[in-house]
Amino acid sequence: MSETMQRINQFRDERNWRQFHNEKDLAISISLEANELLELFQWKTPEETKEDPERLKEELADVLIYSYMMADNLEFDIEEIIAEKLMKNARKYPVTKSFNQKKKYNELDED
Amino acid sequence: MSETMQRINQFRDERNWRQFHNEKDLAISISLEANELLELFQWKTPEETKEDPERLKEELADVLIYSYMMADNLEFDIEEIIAEKLMKNARKYPVTKSFNQKKKYNELDED
Amino acid sequence: MSETMQRINQFRDERNWRQFHNEKDLAISISLEANELLELFQWKTPEETKEDPERLKEELADVLIYSYMMADNLEFDIEEIIAEKLMKNARKYPVTKSFNQKKKYNELDED
Amino acid sequence: MSETMQRINQFRDERNWRQFHNEKDLAISISLEANELLELFQWKTPEETKEDPERLKEELADVLIYSYMMADNLEFDIEEIIAEKLMKNARKYPVTKSFNQKKKYNELDED
Repeated sequence: MSETMQRINQFRDERNWRQFHNEKDLAISISLEANELLELFQWKTPEETKEDPERLKEELADVLIYSYMMADNLEFDIEEIIAEKLMKNARKYPVTKSFNQKKKYNELDED
Repeated sequence: MSETMQRINQFRDERNWRQFHNEKDLAISISLEANELLELFQWKTPEETKEDPERLKEELADVLIYSYMMADNLEFDIEEIIAEKLMKNARKYPVTKSFNQKKKYNELDED
Repeated sequence: MSETMQRINQFRDERNWRQFHNEKDLAISISLEANELLELFQWKTPEETKEDPERLKEELADVLIYSYMMADNLEFDIEEIIAEKLMKNARKYPVTKSFNQKKKYNELDED
Repeated sequence: MSETMQRINQFRDERNWRQFHNEKDLAISISLEANELLELFQWKTPEETKEDPERLKEELADVLIYSYMMADNLEFDIEEIIAEKLMKNARKYPVTKSFNQKKKYNELDED
């Protein structure tokens, strides 16, 4: 287990918080934290947002922490699920068709 | 840089996708992916959800991938911002007051 | 225009806020308010949540206010878009197949 | 009860769906639909998004339909909760201080 995952688990186990961390509520937490991060960009240009990197760091860290907790609950290896998803994405978005393209995979030209 | 971050960057750089990855749209992506993950739990018990671990892995990986991209854009070190946030949380939630407690830090008893 | 829509427009026009209310940022607002509403249910049973109806009223009202603003910006009639969507949903979820069924329309048995 | 609320209730009662519509899952639905709406704006300029008003109408209607269902479950009157929230907002954002200002109420200058 990575050092980061150990730190996260230590944090919740010292407080005996696993009892509250069912995956449904963790999924809600990830969504809420993602929205707190998004809030920093609202009504603002990217430049205005970057003026406050501390808030960005904190909110992004919160998304990551809850995501790591869910991975740990479900016994998923983070490096592994990311590598597998990138391989799936690579098949959906072949370089030749998706270079410079922001289209969704189901909108990519068939030719 | 971690191997995982290198894989993610290789994926987007091969497709020349950084041009689309401004942080505001990445924040929207993280929120959308968090909600796709949450959707797997809707109208279901946790047990019913766990019957399909592949979907869980994929959606959780998507949240992580976009979060890593944002960290990379902003030159944040993931291990570092998580460690810093855990330290802040530890101050807000001292073990003695938050043990077995699901209250928010601003609702913890003062005594 | 309904009295409610007039009230909402009066509120923002008195403050000259339409200049900030582009639809992309309004869509972000709706998502954020939806998540503030969702937060009231987190780590709680439905009964615990209902103990505080004032917060529920406020957060649900916020979702509605931003949704009404977007409808007004885009010149959509709220009663009309709801009626049209219900008709579409009725075709996707015929009563005979969806009675007592929480399945998604694309999972309903073909027979 | 408004004609729109009657239509929505008829839709779910014909399918006997109230059994699934606990408020926590409705709150999740509102968040998910808000994010489907937000998705239409991602990686796009507002003009590109408005090229497809049908999708906008559908996704905005979905947010509203689930919000109306929650209001009905909790016996909230929609016109009323919106009017009350606007009054609260008016106190937080006095016209003189918030005219032309996108600041949050807790950032408005004290003077």
